Amino acid sequence: MSAPGMKDNVTVHGFSPSGNCHKVRLLLEQLGRPYTWVEVRSDIGATHSPEFLAINPNAKVPALVREDGAVLTESNAMLCWLADGTSFVPSDAWQRAQALSWMFFEQYSHEPYVAVARFISGWTPIDSPRRAELPRLRERAHAALAVMERHLASHDWFTGAHYGVADIALFAYTAVADEGGVSLASYPAINAWIERVRATPKFVALPDNDNEVRARIAASV
Amino acid sequence: MSAPGMKDNVTVHGFSPSGNCHKVRLLLEQLGRPYTWVEVRSDIGATHSPEFLAINPNAKVPALVREDGAVLTESNAMLCWLADGTSFVPSDAWQRAQALSWMFFEQYSHEPYVAVARFISGWTPIDSPRRAELPRLRERAHAALAVMERHLASHDWFTGAHYGVADIALFAYTAVADEGGVSLASYPAINAWIERVRATPKFVALPDNDNEVRARIAASV
Repeated sequence: MSAPGMKDNVTVHGFSPSGNCHKVRLLLEQLGRPYTWVEVRSDIGATHSPEFLAINPNAKVPALVREDGAVLTESNAMLCWLADGTSFVPSDAWQRAQALSWMFFEQYSHEPYVAVARFISGWTPIDSPRRAELPRLRERAHAALAVMERHLASHDWFTGAHYGVADIALFAYTAVADEGGVSLASYPAINAWIERVRATPKFVALPDNDNEVRARIAASV
Repeated sequence: MSAPGMKDNVTVHGFSPSGNCHKVRLLLEQLGRPYTWVEVRSDIGATHSPEFLAINPNAKVPALVREDGAVLTESNAMLCWLADGTSFVPSDAWQRAQALSWMFFEQYSHEPYVAVARFISGWTPIDSPRRAELPRLRERAHAALAVMERHLASHDWFTGAHYGVADIALFAYTAVADEGGVSLASYPAINAWIERVRATPKFVALPDNDNEVRARIAASV
């Protein structure tokens, strides 16, 4: 199978509060593509079960499985595959490379700080020693947001002329950065872009956090 | 400009001992494509000069500049652009996504451990406090290598049926992992793959480290 047929069902193994997992759900919803979601509690170690490691030996969600059993890992690779040939990926090679550049930026310079600060704040015990990492993570998160703000001062999107895969990749954790104690108050262009993303057709938000997670976040900021 | 024309010269701003930078040089050499290399001493902060920040506000090498001045950042995005339409990228969408998956794996689960352990070992002072990070970095590096070894037990390459961009991305730091104190002795499939990569047409190796770097590495392992 080459490009995904619209009739083919895919199964996504994912943890719903995870931005990396939500990226895939958001694109599937916006493409109007059928899919099955299998919840995997990565916050309590479910990605290290023998069953899950048989799907992804790297022990990470999300993992996408086709009807024929073939597996694709890495959220941003899933976005590229699912969006292949649609308006969510630029048709021009240079613009496509720019979108990929932002997606690699997201995974290297943004997610390890913005997402990890949020995870530690909301999904680890209040007395976790990992909380000592938060000041450094927040500092690096702001460095990544400054790079995004600079781009958005003269561009509407990260995927070229239109909304697409790089916007989905960067939106996922940026929109909930405050849950990791990373305030977006001083980034007007990012806030305007977040509103543009939320206004795209068939947009779906991350689920609300449960009370326990909310209490931990409130105690962390 | 869409796909790169073979006559167009590109300029790569890079630090020669960096694996991320060497990826781009290796592909350019193997494509037989003309390029200009501008050495940027990222090890002594040259990526934070006003001149360099005007090229890449994220203060990282490599940065690729076209003749018209347009800039592309992120080494793996450069590989995808330069290789677009060549045999270094799979023509099948699913295989292309698998190659991208390995490239995201490289930047998220491999480079931050394998490359950073090497950088700290060879390019920071012997009394640097960052050396306290080495045991954890080496442990995570081995976890990434185990995932690669498992794949290579039943595949020759990371880019599909042929050598290509994902192999170049993963080769860069894997081949010099020992410089970070990460031994490849227990990975026979990785060692065989390294030899296959070295045997590809027009292969070029990283430059030898200078005496000062070699002495620091010898003192670190």
